[in-house]
Amino acid sequence: MTKHINVSPPRGPSDHSVRDQVVDAATEHFGHFGYEKTTVSELAKSIGFSKSYIYKFFDSKQAIGEVICTNRLAMIMAIVNSAISDAPSASEKLRRLFRALTEAGSDLFFHDRKLYDIAAVAARDKWPSAEAHEERLRKLIEQIIVEGRQAGEFERKTPLDEAAHAIYLVMRPYISPVQLQYNLETAPAAAALLSSLILRSLSP
Amino acid sequence: MTKHINVSPPRGPSDHSVRDQVVDAATEHFGHFGYEKTTVSELAKSIGFSKSYIYKFFDSKQAIGEVICTNRLAMIMAIVNSAISDAPSASEKLRRLFRALTEAGSDLFFHDRKLYDIAAVAARDKWPSAEAHEERLRKLIEQIIVEGRQAGEFERKTPLDEAAHAIYLVMRPYISPVQLQYNLETAPAAAALLSSLILRSLSP
Repeated sequence: MTKHINVSPPRGPSDHSVRDQVVDAATEHFGHFGYEKTTVSELAKSIGFSKSYIYKFFDSKQAIGEVICTNRLAMIMAIVNSAISDAPSASEKLRRLFRALTEAGSDLFFHDRKLYDIAAVAARDKWPSAEAHEERLRKLIEQIIVEGRQAGEFERKTPLDEAAHAIYLVMRPYISPVQLQYNLETAPAAAALLSSLILRSLSP
Repeated sequence: MTKHINVSPPRGPSDHSVRDQVVDAATEHFGHFGYEKTTVSELAKSIGFSKSYIYKFFDSKQAIGEVICTNRLAMIMAIVNSAISDAPSASEKLRRLFRALTEAGSDLFFHDRKLYDIAAVAARDKWPSAEAHEERLRKLIEQIIVEGRQAGEFERKTPLDEAAHAIYLVMRPYISPVQLQYNLETAPAAAALLSSLILRSLSP
């Protein structure tokens, strides 16, 4: 199911404004009609460009979807970073990280369902944008653990990558759009309960 | 989506052998053709009974599915109980519980896919059989925690029901058929990593 997209530099004239225009229009178009059901022809028609003109800028529909995903995931990371930036401790950072991620995911589900569906496809098919997002989150968790260890808040016996990966796995069902949709009702309560469990597992 | 089934005593003559015959045939029939796509008429035809005769014994297709689920979940609980019965400690019981549940779920997925799908419908639509299974597992986790606390293996500060529920939530993505299908590849490794995290969270 995984399609690997071309990650070479964009084709055609490096006209950023045209690329942005296509991405903006596609975000709106997919947001109304869904990603999986829309063809590039329909998208081209709705923007008023020819299909071949769009293919000058993007290799495939997935390449457009990737940019949309990347943009949305960047927004989510901005929300997360702002939520944790002034946290008084590493423990509080982990709690806020978990809460911010489930809230941002739930918001996307309830207010932008069709874009949520693109994110779910990206997660299911392991698009590079989704994989990079996972990797960033794992690194962020690792970084918070290091902070907590340095401050004496957390234990230091467990190998860092093991601790970080296990914590990421606890959070994943509430982060990954493929799974969050089955956990929406319980997500806020679960994020609180599981944050406490994670912090108990980290206690020195 | 949730349909509440009739939990009053079975209709018609209390002829257990006919009920069992219908359930056996339905298990096989659904196992071949899937639960959601099969009607009671088709099922009746394949068994050689009339539809109205089947309705003497079961209120609905879901009532038949419930019995199939209940039987399968009883098998899973038997596997789990046998896996943990001779464990030398509460910690080892938790590890084995987690491992046995992911293995039993993965087996069902890979060897009895259509029955797995019934279990997924049961979990998604919160059938009484699925809810009762969850409740049994939560109680079993609680019981293992109590044992571990009495033996001095586990901490005693966290309220028992909170600890048990949080541990159940960590395991759920690898137990619930709705979510396990997205976690199959990583389930064995995740069960090991997450068991260790759970045990760290329980350490005194």
